[in-house]
Amino acid sequence: MLYAIVNNELLPANQATLAVNDLAIQRGYGIFDFFKTINHTPAFLEDHLDRFYQSASILQLPVAYTREDLKALFRRLMEQNQLPDSGIRITLTGGYAADGYTITTPNLIITQQALPDNKGLHTTGIHLVTYPHQRQLPAAKSIDYLMAVWLQSFVKQQAAQDVLYHQNNTVSECPRSNFFIVTTDGVIKTPAHGILQGVIRKQVLQLAAGQYAIQEKSITLEDIYRAKEAFITSTTKNILPVVKVDGQIIGDGLPGKTTTALAADLQKVIDEIAKTR
Amino acid sequence: MLYAIVNNELLPANQATLAVNDLAIQRGYGIFDFFKTINHTPAFLEDHLDRFYQSASILQLPVAYTREDLKALFRRLMEQNQLPDSGIRITLTGGYAADGYTITTPNLIITQQALPDNKGLHTTGIHLVTYPHQRQLPAAKSIDYLMAVWLQSFVKQQAAQDVLYHQNNTVSECPRSNFFIVTTDGVIKTPAHGILQGVIRKQVLQLAAGQYAIQEKSITLEDIYRAKEAFITSTTKNILPVVKVDGQIIGDGLPGKTTTALAADLQKVIDEIAKTR
Repeated sequence: MLYAIVNNELLPANQATLAVNDLAIQRGYGIFDFFKTINHTPAFLEDHLDRFYQSASILQLPVAYTREDLKALFRRLMEQNQLPDSGIRITLTGGYAADGYTITTPNLIITQQALPDNKGLHTTGIHLVTYPHQRQLPAAKSIDYLMAVWLQSFVKQQAAQDVLYHQNNTVSECPRSNFFIVTTDGVIKTPAHGILQGVIRKQVLQLAAGQYAIQEKSITLEDIYRAKEAFITSTTKNILPVVKVDGQIIGDGLPGKTTTALAADLQKVIDEIAKTR
Repeated sequence: MLYAIVNNELLPANQATLAVNDLAIQRGYGIFDFFKTINHTPAFLEDHLDRFYQSASILQLPVAYTREDLKALFRRLMEQNQLPDSGIRITLTGGYAADGYTITTPNLIITQQALPDNKGLHTTGIHLVTYPHQRQLPAAKSIDYLMAVWLQSFVKQQAAQDVLYHQNNTVSECPRSNFFIVTTDGVIKTPAHGILQGVIRKQVLQLAAGQYAIQEKSITLEDIYRAKEAFITSTTKNILPVVKVDGQIIGDGLPGKTTTALAADLQKVIDEIAKTR
């Protein structure tokens, strides 16, 4: 039985509950962040905490916990659960609202779980389908995934593995990943605006710097269809090659060289984290 | 102590909880509806149930309850709580998701509460401020109120009582109300697209039919600033006059004649409901 934390209280995960007048349930109002632990060590924790506080600030949610408070709670949960390789999710909701509408004292939830195995997809690459949408308050990692959950049946119908949002043909991101292309002249391009600033996105840009030309600017659907390579990045997926978008084959339809090289570079960083314990 | 219902179970409202892996908490995914009881009688219940099932269908949520099942649950809750004049909220979430992302078996929550008193605002009318936004999946009454909750501080700063969404100057609705104007030539106009089909909106259109010219078509910000009257409609507010939008006075800055006449017509319908017990 895994444990979870609700407002400083450690308790069995199946007893981790919120009363139904919480603004997350009433109005879909809250934020979260999600990081991996690798061999008992949280990965890129400062980046995730930076973003957690930024998301809270954007959504006007007061955080009653310092960075050290949160780290102590993570340690307590990890000691209890003894899951060396895991995902830890920290959620902050709008709180219990008598009027069902106004932000009160946020509720904090911390859960830990085993991670899904995506390894097969890293070898074959995935198919994306595009859809016109722009996330609300995109710089915040809010719990608003209305369109993402709703679009899952569409993604399946299109025999794709995920959806890529665009507006007027300019793409932003996947619901849970950032999107990159490698152009035919070898430039690594990723959108800069209307997106969540992904922690692995930042790592990839740092790893690519010096090795490749980089452009953080808008990408059109036409840019994608003409690209040599494409990939997405996220905490659970690291770098995942994209080999088809809207039924159009990208490059030669296999994970690209640059993608594969960057994935190897990223793996080295992650392997180092595993050794830091 | 009021009672609530969670998945067929009647229990004290403070024990009405959901586990934190519900998709409402994880991904803001769910729908609801909200109706009034007047002297123990649900008002416009069939309209609300029509919309509840439609919202569920749009969000691809299976409903394991027939209309009669739901009515029986409402009766059970009303008998327990003995609140003759109240609001009843019925919420259906995406359910407990092991992967935190995929719709499973929805959780049903029914709560009942006393209603807020808006009477003063009906005499003075309210101020609105406009903001560029279009609700996601607008025909569904989803729990997505991210922008609405987020905008409350902006509304206060602007000394307004509510926000009116528009896109490229074409208005749709307020977060929890439909919007109407009366033009200088006496036409009642309300947007038809990109909105939630309000139950009181439908009542008002029925009451106005025959008495006034009606146009269900798009309204621009310029149309509003030039309008003779404006008002909003909702289950809690009935008809509420709007006397200022974006700091521009509408008509003579007082609740309009047509607005007041329609509000009186609607009150008669509501008084009839009170007598039906």
